[in-house]
Amino acid sequence: MSWTLARRAERLNPSIIREILKITERPGIISLAGGLPAAEGFPIEALRAASERVLTDAPREAMQYAASEGFGPLREWVAAEMASQGLKVPAGQVLITAGSQQGLDLCAKVLVDAGSTVAVESPTYLGALQAFTPYEPEFLAVACDDEGPVPEAVAAARGARFLYVLPNFQNPSGRSMGHARRDALIDAAARAGVPLLEDNPYGDLWYDAPPPAPLAARDPDNTVYLGSFSKVLVPGLRLGYVIAPQALYPKLLQAKQAADLHTAGFTQRIVHEVVRDGFLQQHLPSVRARYKVQRDAMRDALERHLRPLGCRWTVPAGGMFFWIELPPALDAIALLPKAVDAGVAYVPGSAFYCADARADTLRLSFVTVSPERIAQGIEALAGVLKQALADRPAPVHA
Amino acid sequence: MSWTLARRAERLNPSIIREILKITERPGIISLAGGLPAAEGFPIEALRAASERVLTDAPREAMQYAASEGFGPLREWVAAEMASQGLKVPAGQVLITAGSQQGLDLCAKVLVDAGSTVAVESPTYLGALQAFTPYEPEFLAVACDDEGPVPEAVAAARGARFLYVLPNFQNPSGRSMGHARRDALIDAAARAGVPLLEDNPYGDLWYDAPPPAPLAARDPDNTVYLGSFSKVLVPGLRLGYVIAPQALYPKLLQAKQAADLHTAGFTQRIVHEVVRDGFLQQHLPSVRARYKVQRDAMRDALERHLRPLGCRWTVPAGGMFFWIELPPALDAIALLPKAVDAGVAYVPGSAFYCADARADTLRLSFVTVSPERIAQGIEALAGVLKQALADRPAPVHA
Repeated sequence: MSWTLARRAERLNPSIIREILKITERPGIISLAGGLPAAEGFPIEALRAASERVLTDAPREAMQYAASEGFGPLREWVAAEMASQGLKVPAGQVLITAGSQQGLDLCAKVLVDAGSTVAVESPTYLGALQAFTPYEPEFLAVACDDEGPVPEAVAAARGARFLYVLPNFQNPSGRSMGHARRDALIDAAARAGVPLLEDNPYGDLWYDAPPPAPLAARDPDNTVYLGSFSKVLVPGLRLGYVIAPQALYPKLLQAKQAADLHTAGFTQRIVHEVVRDGFLQQHLPSVRARYKVQRDAMRDALERHLRPLGCRWTVPAGGMFFWIELPPALDAIALLPKAVDAGVAYVPGSAFYCADARADTLRLSFVTVSPERIAQGIEALAGVLKQALADRPAPVHA
Repeated sequence: MSWTLARRAERLNPSIIREILKITERPGIISLAGGLPAAEGFPIEALRAASERVLTDAPREAMQYAASEGFGPLREWVAAEMASQGLKVPAGQVLITAGSQQGLDLCAKVLVDAGSTVAVESPTYLGALQAFTPYEPEFLAVACDDEGPVPEAVAAARGARFLYVLPNFQNPSGRSMGHARRDALIDAAARAGVPLLEDNPYGDLWYDAPPPAPLAARDPDNTVYLGSFSKVLVPGLRLGYVIAPQALYPKLLQAKQAADLHTAGFTQRIVHEVVRDGFLQQHLPSVRARYKVQRDAMRDALERHLRPLGCRWTVPAGGMFFWIELPPALDAIALLPKAVDAGVAYVPGSAFYCADARADTLRLSFVTVSPERIAQGIEALAGVLKQALADRPAPVHA
């Protein structure tokens, strides 16, 4: 064998979520594991009409090589949309990416050296850990409470290349930052000299009230903002965007060129055709309504079946996930095969920690399956937990 | 400013080609610079029909998250297509990528540490140098002749993580490797313990006779093969593929997951619908016929206008480019603004060298503009060169 792997390749390992997703493709399994948006809600007719318009109006432009920055009118749309959320940036600071996952990769490529500190929430989005890992950082978990990073704990991240945060309906915990916490976090990060990487895939999926303005609106020079069309439209077109301060934009753009030249013009033009005339303002309420019903179904099922077992959670005000803390001594990884046998799947919470993983946590998604199946799934999960509690060795009284 | 850039970011610089392409968007410029396929030849009707079929038959699957490996039937098609070229691999070793540019990025991500040696042809594809550079390699230029790397020179690359080669109608030089050279290169690489990265975007664009079997068919365990739909179909869908030995495939797959989760299912399904029933066998002859006429037009114009000035080139048997060696003391970078003023653009050859760039070379693309415009462009270029030769200081006779 003549191949020699890069040192970073040792850190590349199969995604536990993707491995679990393979199991859950077994027919009959109720999967509360994946974060797949409900396909019934995809606006197929709007996408079809947009696709036809692009192929009629500009087929050759859509199929030709294009600018690494992204499709101009889509960048303009993003800039206008962000302005309405309080973040005023020119379209020249918008970079279109292959989902926000590529935004994470490009940011790490430009900002992380081997051995650099990267600060994250605990728990945090597994895909971000995977995107950052090839650049060989040292992860630092910032202490968190029910609103995310505790401002007083941010000083410990001094020297980190960035602090990665999901302020809205965080994956996996479901928690959100209020106005005051955002202001306090911005102040603490500025005092510690730590820039922010703000990831906001779920911000439009609010079920009670819209979230506060993004961190980037409060300190645009110190924050890179990542957005996505995956949750508000469809994930399969792989379209997201990065809004970067002028100090970083040219380097991110060059990293994008090096990575794949540019994102497909065809898909960018389709999405622009769909969103340009305010479609999301009609579409999002129906997505929110659907997911709110499913969230409420999971909340009710959890209350009925898991509360009596001593499980704990906070009801998420948006997004896709409940984060469950199991009773002491239960191990979500060990229980997963039993849950799958009982017809239900989840993601063990330990996947979402960069260190000191808590084995007694798990993540449940409420967006993929119907309220009826959610109720069945939670009941099946409760059966597994009940059995595990019964099998648990009796506590030793010293 | 709280941002600290990664060390690799210093090496990320704007693509000279993309900067030149911006200039050439000026109306009236005859651009022989870009490698843009001729958009008139794009099979828009086939793409439109395929797009409609996908949106009718499997719209939700096409728009949902999908496998990182790529769309199964497209991977099967690639495996069958490669088998017809002598490379027998299961579809399980095919990874769909965002153009072959992403394949280059992923290979470097998995194989290159800071300071690793990466061996390349001289000159070589600029986009590959850009893809590899962020991983901080030391480049080693292997001595080349009219067929690419000289086998005797490959021993000098011992210890390199790979040797990157474009055996068919190389970008930028237009040269190709014959059968015997391929066998000799495979032997030399095996003796030196240097694996090969074989990039083949242009193999189907032959104008005289099809090229020999790929290097990967001769030594599949020692070769990663990169293919692309950009030149045989359209570039704007950003679809390519990597065929990797089993020893590497899992790491490349994990790098792909980390980079962007997966390539858009919609575009993969469209391309599969287009190619599945042998469409390329009807389509490619028309692409070849178009480009052969354009190649011949450039050959004739060069013969008429540049031969008398002392320029040298080899007529490419396929692909997209002529590589011109200028008379001594002419500098293609210095002359570019004059050429643009005269209404014609090219890429200075020095962009394609990792070291010891030859200033007296330039690359001309014959695929983007019509035979008439090619003739006009070459005549304009000849005018600029003639003036430069007249302005050249008289040689000093010692």
